[in-house]
Amino acid sequence: MRWHLDAPIPEVARNLVVKGLELSLDCDFVFSALDSSVAGSAEEDFARAGYPVVSNSRNHRMDADVPLLIPEVNAAHLDAIPWQQKNRGYHTGFIVTNPNCSTAGLVLVLKPLVDAFGLEKIFVVTLQAISGAGYPGVAAMDIQGNVVPFISGEEDKMESEPQKLLGKWDGSRFVDAGIGLSAHCNRVPVVDGHLECVSVGLKKIASLDEVREALRNFEVDAELASLPSALRNPVVFLNEENRPQPRRDVHAGNGMAAVVGRVRECPLLDVKLTLLAHNLVRGAAGAALLNAELLAARGFLKHRVTPSESHLAEPVWR
Amino acid sequence: MRWHLDAPIPEVARNLVVKGLELSLDCDFVFSALDSSVAGSAEEDFARAGYPVVSNSRNHRMDADVPLLIPEVNAAHLDAIPWQQKNRGYHTGFIVTNPNCSTAGLVLVLKPLVDAFGLEKIFVVTLQAISGAGYPGVAAMDIQGNVVPFISGEEDKMESEPQKLLGKWDGSRFVDAGIGLSAHCNRVPVVDGHLECVSVGLKKIASLDEVREALRNFEVDAELASLPSALRNPVVFLNEENRPQPRRDVHAGNGMAAVVGRVRECPLLDVKLTLLAHNLVRGAAGAALLNAELLAARGFLKHRVTPSESHLAEPVWR
Amino acid sequence: MRWHLDAPIPEVARNLVVKGLELSLDCDFVFSALDSSVAGSAEEDFARAGYPVVSNSRNHRMDADVPLLIPEVNAAHLDAIPWQQKNRGYHTGFIVTNPNCSTAGLVLVLKPLVDAFGLEKIFVVTLQAISGAGYPGVAAMDIQGNVVPFISGEEDKMESEPQKLLGKWDGSRFVDAGIGLSAHCNRVPVVDGHLECVSVGLKKIASLDEVREALRNFEVDAELASLPSALRNPVVFLNEENRPQPRRDVHAGNGMAAVVGRVRECPLLDVKLTLLAHNLVRGAAGAALLNAELLAARGFLKHRVTPSESHLAEPVWR
Amino acid sequence: MRWHLDAPIPEVARNLVVKGLELSLDCDFVFSALDSSVAGSAEEDFARAGYPVVSNSRNHRMDADVPLLIPEVNAAHLDAIPWQQKNRGYHTGFIVTNPNCSTAGLVLVLKPLVDAFGLEKIFVVTLQAISGAGYPGVAAMDIQGNVVPFISGEEDKMESEPQKLLGKWDGSRFVDAGIGLSAHCNRVPVVDGHLECVSVGLKKIASLDEVREALRNFEVDAELASLPSALRNPVVFLNEENRPQPRRDVHAGNGMAAVVGRVRECPLLDVKLTLLAHNLVRGAAGAALLNAELLAARGFLKHRVTPSESHLAEPVWR
Repeated sequence: MRWHLDAPIPEVARNLVVKGLELSLDCDFVFSALDSSVAGSAEEDFARAGYPVVSNSRNHRMDADVPLLIPEVNAAHLDAIPWQQKNRGYHTGFIVTNPNCSTAGLVLVLKPLVDAFGLEKIFVVTLQAISGAGYPGVAAMDIQGNVVPFISGEEDKMESEPQKLLGKWDGSRFVDAGIGLSAHCNRVPVVDGHLECVSVGLKKIASLDEVREALRNFEVDAELASLPSALRNPVVFLNEENRPQPRRDVHAGNGMAAVVGRVRECPLLDVKLTLLAHNLVRGAAGAALLNAELLAARGFLKHRVTPSESHLAEPVWR
Repeated sequence: MRWHLDAPIPEVARNLVVKGLELSLDCDFVFSALDSSVAGSAEEDFARAGYPVVSNSRNHRMDADVPLLIPEVNAAHLDAIPWQQKNRGYHTGFIVTNPNCSTAGLVLVLKPLVDAFGLEKIFVVTLQAISGAGYPGVAAMDIQGNVVPFISGEEDKMESEPQKLLGKWDGSRFVDAGIGLSAHCNRVPVVDGHLECVSVGLKKIASLDEVREALRNFEVDAELASLPSALRNPVVFLNEENRPQPRRDVHAGNGMAAVVGRVRECPLLDVKLTLLAHNLVRGAAGAALLNAELLAARGFLKHRVTPSESHLAEPVWR
Repeated sequence: MRWHLDAPIPEVARNLVVKGLELSLDCDFVFSALDSSVAGSAEEDFARAGYPVVSNSRNHRMDADVPLLIPEVNAAHLDAIPWQQKNRGYHTGFIVTNPNCSTAGLVLVLKPLVDAFGLEKIFVVTLQAISGAGYPGVAAMDIQGNVVPFISGEEDKMESEPQKLLGKWDGSRFVDAGIGLSAHCNRVPVVDGHLECVSVGLKKIASLDEVREALRNFEVDAELASLPSALRNPVVFLNEENRPQPRRDVHAGNGMAAVVGRVRECPLLDVKLTLLAHNLVRGAAGAALLNAELLAARGFLKHRVTPSESHLAEPVWR
Repeated sequence: MRWHLDAPIPEVARNLVVKGLELSLDCDFVFSALDSSVAGSAEEDFARAGYPVVSNSRNHRMDADVPLLIPEVNAAHLDAIPWQQKNRGYHTGFIVTNPNCSTAGLVLVLKPLVDAFGLEKIFVVTLQAISGAGYPGVAAMDIQGNVVPFISGEEDKMESEPQKLLGKWDGSRFVDAGIGLSAHCNRVPVVDGHLECVSVGLKKIASLDEVREALRNFEVDAELASLPSALRNPVVFLNEENRPQPRRDVHAGNGMAAVVGRVRECPLLDVKLTLLAHNLVRGAAGAALLNAELLAARGFLKHRVTPSESHLAEPVWR
């Protein structure tokens, strides 16, 4: 095992055993950060075998019956789980996913604007950190003192995932939010933290001060606030004209905050703003962890039964 | 004198004498790259004293009677010079400016699209190099492994200058192009070369292939092509999905080309593209040089006379 | 006031008032991080006025009667304080300094080797972080993708300060350690953390394993270990063949550790090793803080009296 | 084929066909930049098949009968070729190698000092560019804003290759120079150009001015100077106190120069200096090219015969 984080490997992790994709793990649920080349079927196998699967992989994000979840944004999408289980013949297992790293911060910041004013159009250009590409990931020869204006598949994800996240579960399918959305994605020589330049068109006329207030006052409800990884104010609003900055602000809220600033008028749409989120925390591991915490709080992670025992068990979705 | 370019100082430059802003220079015209704190009045003084002023400073760019010039884009704006001289009481002197470093590349790439399809809307996000801030300019502590999403005054310039560059001189004033234009400006840890992510809305429906053809086939006329610093094809079109990149493409056309790639559909406007230009060459010194070359070719730099001699001279603008 | 640390300014600091160099401060002692252009006389003024001065500035470091202090290395040098007070006519005031940022880590790592084997020669090449030059400090244009093989005055400091730190106070002056010492200093594009490649010649023959053991087992005494900023093991020994690395290891021991690794044979001297220390913590603010903590623990910071009251007071040095 | 240089692929290269390691190439000699996992036997196969092999790979560099060649340093080592052919039973084929990228610049700069004063000891610490590790090579995650104080095998090469380069061919074997040599090797976030901090001990006492003169006046003979890739003055001496710098000086002499500066006293040995060489040109491709040019000029690349024809041919070495 090769350890890539700067802090030394914790004792509790050092002694963990790496196993293959065996369907006989002794655990209440599984996290999946599998490569997309194998995640598709592996996650289905685990769900079918009774394991709730909390996935960071992209394969099932856009499935019609799989919640793409940011607890602060669309916790109501968990209503799709019983339908998914019924639909796929899963018993206690199911799949829940979190969005792509650059989608996560964007949608979290836009959530209070959607709630307060409605959202018609989003123009977003990302400046994404190298850690988003994994390890070894980006070659130093490619990114040293450079920008690479292309990340494979990223613009597609950013133009589709927010539609689902900000859309609704109607009882049998997810209905898109119907927002006009255009994304340009770039890789920049920054270690951690995806910065995004965003212009938005609102449904309701709002002053810049009203927009700032909506962002500044965004607060989650008591249930969410009680989750171990949650922040009561997951959107951090900065007043400085030159913030957020990846190197300086990426650790806000232990990496679980989306940091927003530079709220100003947009001559083309309504409002320009700049946001930042930690791609490895809010955009990946932390997102999955928070999803699992919400699932646990709502009772979705109890009573795992293997298919062979399932005639004895009350399926969760009944 | 402190020399900042990588190549050693050329002999011809080593022996030049630095003088103050004296109005008795023995030369046919002057280049101005003065700091904006002094350029305003200094350039007027030189013009009034009979010197054509070819300026890279921002002070007079948006003046109603001063051409903001990119030869490949709006050479016809030179028609304003006689008016400016009459209006200001200049004799042989006048002021011509080149645009801001991030405007230059943008407008050069958009020119063939304006010609072929017309342009209604521009959304642009810049990733600008540190050399754009001069020396010492950006502190390493601010930009090392970081992005600064703010450059003082830059978004204003980018939202106003293209309107003038792509607009018309109507005989007594410049008429704006009337394009909807929104700019976000960022500083990135790149030495040279401003990268820009652009979405455009066209007046006329065009396929992506037609857009690519327009960009690829852009060619200047024989007069321009004959200028020493000019390129016959100042827009370089790249097919690779991950280009242009600042470190790799900044020297295209000796820094005088604007490099464009990633032409693809925009779900919000019509076309997305990514462009790059060398901020120190096409965006500054090279721009001023090319402007001077065009002025020389058109006879604007001859016959300088000082005001005291001007009763003997035929003013240029008659 | 402009705040440069990444974490927001703490409330306790936000309300501090910045005053001039007034000799009527209401405090038990002063920290000095003054620019060397003023530190020399200002620190003397404060000491004369009765204030113990805990300084990070370079001016008095090499004074014959001023301790240059690293608590883990030469706490015995505090014996020079009474002599300094007598010598200079200070009453309760005195000056104690900490070393240059690149000296601090070097000497801390060498201390266990001096104790165990004696030290004859040191060859050191530094790769120093940009934060070592303050703010704005190094221009991004100079260091982006580059190395600058020169830091004004740095090699001199590194070749003289360790002699004093590892030397002895003989009752009336500091006697140099008499080590042969050669330093090359470079600036590299790293935010925090000075890395140093060191070869040492030992007085006593030692195996590489003995050297590793000496480094690994270095531990401070109970008095030092009880200081708030102190580490019981201020030298952190890494086994990995490619560590320490500035970005990954700079925060070891909250920035107060010196991290060492790559202990291997030197064909020219005896042992090669690579070390790292946080230039802003162990090399500056943390060093001064630890010095003040030791002074406080030993009773040097009590009983400040102004000169006008001094006929009433028991001078510390009696 | 993936093209990694910044300038577009030249037409002449675009149409070259990539073949396997076939011993029936139609050419006078071969360049080898093979991976060391295959270079060993492949180069022997080609030499045995009659091809002169001009290699940049490390496998045969230290072979007792293979010249490790820098034309400006040890052209006389070509005398080993006939012996190599006889010894190995090669006919027209043979192997000649160039040194490791960090050795090349070091030895080139030391050559005039060896000639003028003799050399006893070398202490060298390298700060090596990322391009030295090939492509994809160093992961951006490892080197961004960081230094990696380890390059596999590099210190060994740097401590052995100069001994051979500066040693002598005695008719049947290479005799080492017998210099005491210690190397520390580091990777820094620089694209191209290996910087080296060097202290040297000379055999003969010399003033700093004499050392500077020796470096400044180093000039190759007429035969070498006439080679297409050669420089008459391959050592470029800089006076500025903060040069050479990789980003600013790497292209000196089209990458074929070694740039040296900061000549100053060393308290431990005699002289400190800092040098720089382009690792991809002087340290790799350019080195091999210059070797081939010298071989061609001396007639070593004519008359290639395949082994089956060799009874008809005059072997070169007779």
